[in-house]
Amino acid sequence: MATLRVELGDRAYPIEVGSGLIDDPARFRPHLRGPRAAVVTSATVAPLYLARVSAALRAAGAEVLEVVLPDGEENKSWATLNRVFDALLAARCDRDTTLVALGGGVVGDMAGFAAAVYQRGVPFIQVPTTLLAQVDSSVGGKTGINHPLGKNMIGAFHQPQAVIADVDTLGTLPRRELRAGIAEVVKHGFIRDAGFVDWLEASGIERLAAGEAEALTHAVVRSCEIKAEVVGCDEREAGLRAILNFGHTFGHAIESGLGYGEWVHGEAVAAGMVMGADLSARAGLLSAADAARVPALLVRAGLPVAGPAGLAAERYLELMAVDKKAARGRIRFVLLEKVGGAVLRGDLPEALVRATLDACTAR
Amino acid sequence: MATLRVELGDRAYPIEVGSGLIDDPARFRPHLRGPRAAVVTSATVAPLYLARVSAALRAAGAEVLEVVLPDGEENKSWATLNRVFDALLAARCDRDTTLVALGGGVVGDMAGFAAAVYQRGVPFIQVPTTLLAQVDSSVGGKTGINHPLGKNMIGAFHQPQAVIADVDTLGTLPRRELRAGIAEVVKHGFIRDAGFVDWLEASGIERLAAGEAEALTHAVVRSCEIKAEVVGCDEREAGLRAILNFGHTFGHAIESGLGYGEWVHGEAVAAGMVMGADLSARAGLLSAADAARVPALLVRAGLPVAGPAGLAAERYLELMAVDKKAARGRIRFVLLEKVGGAVLRGDLPEALVRATLDACTAR
Repeated sequence: MATLRVELGDRAYPIEVGSGLIDDPARFRPHLRGPRAAVVTSATVAPLYLARVSAALRAAGAEVLEVVLPDGEENKSWATLNRVFDALLAARCDRDTTLVALGGGVVGDMAGFAAAVYQRGVPFIQVPTTLLAQVDSSVGGKTGINHPLGKNMIGAFHQPQAVIADVDTLGTLPRRELRAGIAEVVKHGFIRDAGFVDWLEASGIERLAAGEAEALTHAVVRSCEIKAEVVGCDEREAGLRAILNFGHTFGHAIESGLGYGEWVHGEAVAAGMVMGADLSARAGLLSAADAARVPALLVRAGLPVAGPAGLAAERYLELMAVDKKAARGRIRFVLLEKVGGAVLRGDLPEALVRATLDACTAR
Repeated sequence: MATLRVELGDRAYPIEVGSGLIDDPARFRPHLRGPRAAVVTSATVAPLYLARVSAALRAAGAEVLEVVLPDGEENKSWATLNRVFDALLAARCDRDTTLVALGGGVVGDMAGFAAAVYQRGVPFIQVPTTLLAQVDSSVGGKTGINHPLGKNMIGAFHQPQAVIADVDTLGTLPRRELRAGIAEVVKHGFIRDAGFVDWLEASGIERLAAGEAEALTHAVVRSCEIKAEVVGCDEREAGLRAILNFGHTFGHAIESGLGYGEWVHGEAVAAGMVMGADLSARAGLLSAADAARVPALLVRAGLPVAGPAGLAAERYLELMAVDKKAARGRIRFVLLEKVGGAVLRGDLPEALVRATLDACTAR
């Protein structure tokens, strides 16, 4: 087992990555504040891992409440979140209750937000069971739900007590979900670590796509290290942290433009990173050859390398204007200035962005 | 104008108390993060003060959005809160938008919670227009909404950039609302400042009930000083801050048991403080004579000094068990150990609590 640490002063917490973790009471015991734990999970994950996690929590001394939510980005809503509050209040859970988020990014974001606002804040533990959640969404304390006018528009920064990433759970992950996680792994390389991109290009990406345990462990650890380092420097996204959104400004527009759930998040981010790299080249920051490494790598994992046909440039611009990363009406983009180095730019001519959108959309 | 300061490190903020403040752009200018401000107010307060506050904000350089919410505790719900998000998103407000809460406690709690979770947190300014809000709810960063199973069950700690308490706005306050605020003023005296209780007993309480400007200013300043001092020691209610809940455990049960809106918050707190003082005497912490000073003072302001007829002890115990201050199933009470000194106790025999409830309920 590897243990990393997210350095956030009195909100610092460990990330544990390894095999067989979800069955081990010792992983949970130090992070339970009071005698009760409420496991929040999804209908898909519940039959696979809920009984095992609850058993480990009971063995760690907790009284366990289980809350099973419907799956999918379209259920990342207030109505679904309210089911968690209903269950907690019906069971008279107080501020000493620890929430446990068992599942993918949607469950993690929702359970984390529930923990952020239930009785003005209770502790929670992330137990991510998808690659996307293990390498990205479970780390960093971003929680939230969607609004009809935008993704993650309602939320909070709320750091977990711990992240327990059991790579064994990735064995049951559908291939499409595995690929979606690989997109975020690739992102971490391109924004921060050229050596990690080299590893992926050598053969890492195929090993990840094949679900090889050793490669997955390496990718989860390296991704969490990069994300923890960035978040440790800038918890509330005042500056550096924004680089983690490489590909996401375009990606959110794709998700939102198609309707949540058409493309999964990682697919939209993959196409978004291709656009981000293309825009970096057009802005004169990155060589065309380096920009081309982004789609060349992603395509090997079976990820989309162009935006969906039928989503016009105009619609992207409209959707991106309402995105959280738009500051005072200007759309800010994360661009690459080299492989392994990202910058935030808010001064790009709209014509350049349109050129990228036209060049990177499937016909 | 008096300026106090809530000492919370990098979240410290000023409280300004005085006359004519809501028309003064200089009060708002230092606290606007970006070029946009969204004033959230209620249908009652909007015709009185919205145009004036918006004018001051415009004069301070802000582009102003106005959001008018329906009044009342029964509207302190997710559905009403969502109107704020709808308006902010429709106007494409980004993270640099400053929310301005103009109104009483309900507006302050809702606008503050909207600010806490809109795009994971935007700045906000409290402009309280009721005595209750000026002496209590606008200070300390508690924000939230109600859930059918309990008051303020969903919320966040989110500190404002500033509190601007214009005592002139109290001139339009209905008498019942003024009395409700006086209950919290009395609370601050009993938990922390015997001299302030003496001032209220001398003639202060009648002067407040008559709406005398000088007395109101003194009471707002002294109340904010006491609350700021307590909150500065314990922002997230790990310990000391709980003393501010004197009368509130019983009070919340009254509000919840009768249905929100039957009794206003301050009325429920008044009866709750009488119960708290009675319980303090029964627990041997306070003399019967000192306990009797609580109802003797409150009755002079026309506040209730007993719980409503028909709300049985059993129902209180049930409702209090789900209250946030119940730790691990035990109900914790704020009791007085002297006039001007409060303590938190979680070890009281239920029989004692029942005796208090029986003694302090109207027949």
